[in-house]
Amino acid sequence: MRNMDWKDQRNLTMLCDFYELTMANGYFENGMGEKEVVFDLFFRRIPDNGGFAIMAGVEGMIEYVRNLKFTREDIEYLRSQKLFSDKFLEYLANFRFTCSVWAIPEGTPIFPNEPIVTVKGNVIQAQFIETMLLLTINHQSLIATKANRIVRAAKGRPVLEFGSRRAHGADGAILGARSAIIGGCAGTACTIAARDYGVNAVGTMAHSWIQLFEDEYEAFKAYAKLYPNSCTLLVDTYNVLKSGVPNAIRVSKEVLEPNGYRLKGIRLDSGDLAYLSKQARKMLDEAGLTDCKIVASNALDEYLIRDLLDQGAQIDIFGVGENLVTSRSEPVFGGVYKLSAVKNDAGVFEPRIKVSENVEKVTNPGFKQVWRLFDKKTGHAIADVITLREEEIDDTKPYEIFDPVHTWKRKVVDNFTAKKLQVEIFRDGECVYESPSLEEIARYCKDQVDNTLWEEVKRFENPHKYYVDLSHKLWTMKTELLNSYKK
Amino acid sequence: MRNMDWKDQRNLTMLCDFYELTMANGYFENGMGEKEVVFDLFFRRIPDNGGFAIMAGVEGMIEYVRNLKFTREDIEYLRSQKLFSDKFLEYLANFRFTCSVWAIPEGTPIFPNEPIVTVKGNVIQAQFIETMLLLTINHQSLIATKANRIVRAAKGRPVLEFGSRRAHGADGAILGARSAIIGGCAGTACTIAARDYGVNAVGTMAHSWIQLFEDEYEAFKAYAKLYPNSCTLLVDTYNVLKSGVPNAIRVSKEVLEPNGYRLKGIRLDSGDLAYLSKQARKMLDEAGLTDCKIVASNALDEYLIRDLLDQGAQIDIFGVGENLVTSRSEPVFGGVYKLSAVKNDAGVFEPRIKVSENVEKVTNPGFKQVWRLFDKKTGHAIADVITLREEEIDDTKPYEIFDPVHTWKRKVVDNFTAKKLQVEIFRDGECVYESPSLEEIARYCKDQVDNTLWEEVKRFENPHKYYVDLSHKLWTMKTELLNSYKK
Repeated sequence: MRNMDWKDQRNLTMLCDFYELTMANGYFENGMGEKEVVFDLFFRRIPDNGGFAIMAGVEGMIEYVRNLKFTREDIEYLRSQKLFSDKFLEYLANFRFTCSVWAIPEGTPIFPNEPIVTVKGNVIQAQFIETMLLLTINHQSLIATKANRIVRAAKGRPVLEFGSRRAHGADGAILGARSAIIGGCAGTACTIAARDYGVNAVGTMAHSWIQLFEDEYEAFKAYAKLYPNSCTLLVDTYNVLKSGVPNAIRVSKEVLEPNGYRLKGIRLDSGDLAYLSKQARKMLDEAGLTDCKIVASNALDEYLIRDLLDQGAQIDIFGVGENLVTSRSEPVFGGVYKLSAVKNDAGVFEPRIKVSENVEKVTNPGFKQVWRLFDKKTGHAIADVITLREEEIDDTKPYEIFDPVHTWKRKVVDNFTAKKLQVEIFRDGECVYESPSLEEIARYCKDQVDNTLWEEVKRFENPHKYYVDLSHKLWTMKTELLNSYKK
Repeated sequence: MRNMDWKDQRNLTMLCDFYELTMANGYFENGMGEKEVVFDLFFRRIPDNGGFAIMAGVEGMIEYVRNLKFTREDIEYLRSQKLFSDKFLEYLANFRFTCSVWAIPEGTPIFPNEPIVTVKGNVIQAQFIETMLLLTINHQSLIATKANRIVRAAKGRPVLEFGSRRAHGADGAILGARSAIIGGCAGTACTIAARDYGVNAVGTMAHSWIQLFEDEYEAFKAYAKLYPNSCTLLVDTYNVLKSGVPNAIRVSKEVLEPNGYRLKGIRLDSGDLAYLSKQARKMLDEAGLTDCKIVASNALDEYLIRDLLDQGAQIDIFGVGENLVTSRSEPVFGGVYKLSAVKNDAGVFEPRIKVSENVEKVTNPGFKQVWRLFDKKTGHAIADVITLREEEIDDTKPYEIFDPVHTWKRKVVDNFTAKKLQVEIFRDGECVYESPSLEEIARYCKDQVDNTLWEEVKRFENPHKYYVDLSHKLWTMKTELLNSYKK
């Protein structure tokens, strides 16, 4: 039961790159509008040189596609550009989405070069949705991936999303919070996201609260009286160890404990968090407040959290802001959307390839499928294999995988299960997928990361490169196409 | 005449950090709800170590404040949290914004530590709008600042905004495009932004267009026939110099010129742009296409553009995507929102200061004003001076400015005009400001950057640090407050 008044009403149909419209008009005018094509959405590099990324944005993609509709104003604006034929504008006015779309579900670990979304349908439509599909998947996968890194660095301690004020626009904040939850965050300070996605809204006080009272003690006391059940006090307004923590302990003794309550936490938002948290922990413990949590915030990310914990910082909960909500260290998830097949007059999909001097940029041709092979004994993911759509991987028999560049690197896999990663989202324009709840997605993500990925893939630095191989058939087809282009 | 159906209908009232609500309830319950306070929004560091930033986001801030309204669903959600009193929720249900707000107009060069927005009003409201004010000003100023850097690197050549697909959500794309225009971009590929802000929508074709035709020549021909007036051809699908440029020239000769049209441009989207553009220029010139523009894109930013031009690249127009729309090199504009004054029972604003061990983080107290002093002879900005609100700078007499940290650094300014930078936006809750058009803002920005800033402030590396000084009165007050805190 989500109440999406901030979002549902928006018509984002015109959030497209203008060339999608000039091309669409061109296809239409050249009688190619009904040509059936396949596009793949994939990415080439994992942010922060990580070993995997986390898929997110499928629900947003569905909402966008469902709301596709050109209004009269849209049509009149396009007419005023004097580039589009009347017939084409009439086509847009009656636009109804009829493509089929497959995607890897949100929360799944994903790897470079595999089609994480595949779109099949007429070229006008399949091309038209390029920008919003990329924008949605790129943004949300970026933040989910970053959140997952930060959450893993915290080694089981809750991480809270605090970044709205530094997000890139309202969507950046709201969908950023949603993506952070997918990646493993335990709550968000973003009230609207907490409400709409049914997650914990967290937060206590700003420094201004303290400054508005006579002194720190009075400010703490007023807060504790009001919220005795959920009292976390910000202790760094004046001096953490000389004033903040002693005042927090005093309030616990004088206001909370006499009425049967416990001080829930203190928050550090500046200074040397390792040193201060250790000293504060001692002071709290000596006062009998061993159950009082220490929350830390202030420009944290996965590296800082790892360092703090390495140094024995006594921090129970991390609040992470700008470095998470903007994925500051790498704010771009470079997903691309490339043509991979065109149906010929005989009704057969012919593969298309984009060649490039840069070998990394050569695309995988054809209408494809992605499989993940899991070791039956350990449950670990062994490799992903990209096959042609009609291929099946028979997991009752040994299966040979090989590196698509260094083809002498081969391995026979045995005792495994093969699972298709993409699920059907739209069938001929009709949505046939029901998004899981955010809680379910987050739980699935945690399970996949914890139980199917090798530790070596999860390293922050120099992770093991997970195999994303091509089937023999696909590799042969790609090689032949490349050879034919060289002629 | 803007048609904002993507935005106007959204109720973003609940896009706040949850602590703003717990604090508000606290002020309300403690009988402090009507306490009048002043908050300043300012930033501490210029992104990319630049010499100045560009203000943006004022229009967005106005829209947000105007739409502030708690719906019944909002109230019920808050009630379900079991933290807020019924009286407070009733107050929210009848919420009407009554604060006064001043801001520096969009497009103005701005500097660290000066109040770029000032909010005066009751503490509940002034605190409540914190998150959205920061989010809006931070995001849009970030992108306008980055755009301005990129535009200056291009030295008069048009820069086009191409980044929607890598933006952080739909707002990131749309408001990113708007901010890019403020910073000086000449157009955007983002159709919805082009329509809603009345700027040029730009774009021609993707590689997929080329791939859908028999061959590159056929693809170019079809495009040229359709758009003879605005024909820019993407020449890097197969091989720029062996195929793309020759085919473009052939289409110009065979399709465009016989019908009285000229080839408008070619676009390079990969490879060595310096080398390719020089070779392509020669080939075009030899074919008599000296008026054909060369557009370049592919992961450009201010540094790459400067390098390309240094190497004599023959590029006429730059398309910039992800590095602009996310401000990739520094995706956070660290604006903060701090309490600076509280009205006492006698009706006088008492200054508040936030002390910190980190000297850079000590705030400027009091209800303040920012002035810019312009040299009457050159028109150049000499310094900004932060004064108390009631102070006037008399520019008919010499005025002494001094560094607020190294106070022995002094300078007497003469023959200058002093201009208050903030303009009134809301007076007791009522909007009294009419936003200029985007075109006017962009023109104003260009004029301010070109004509009022010293070249030394505009350097990309190690720019001269522009003076932002305190008036003698403000400095004295701050020093006294700091001394009193030390006791």
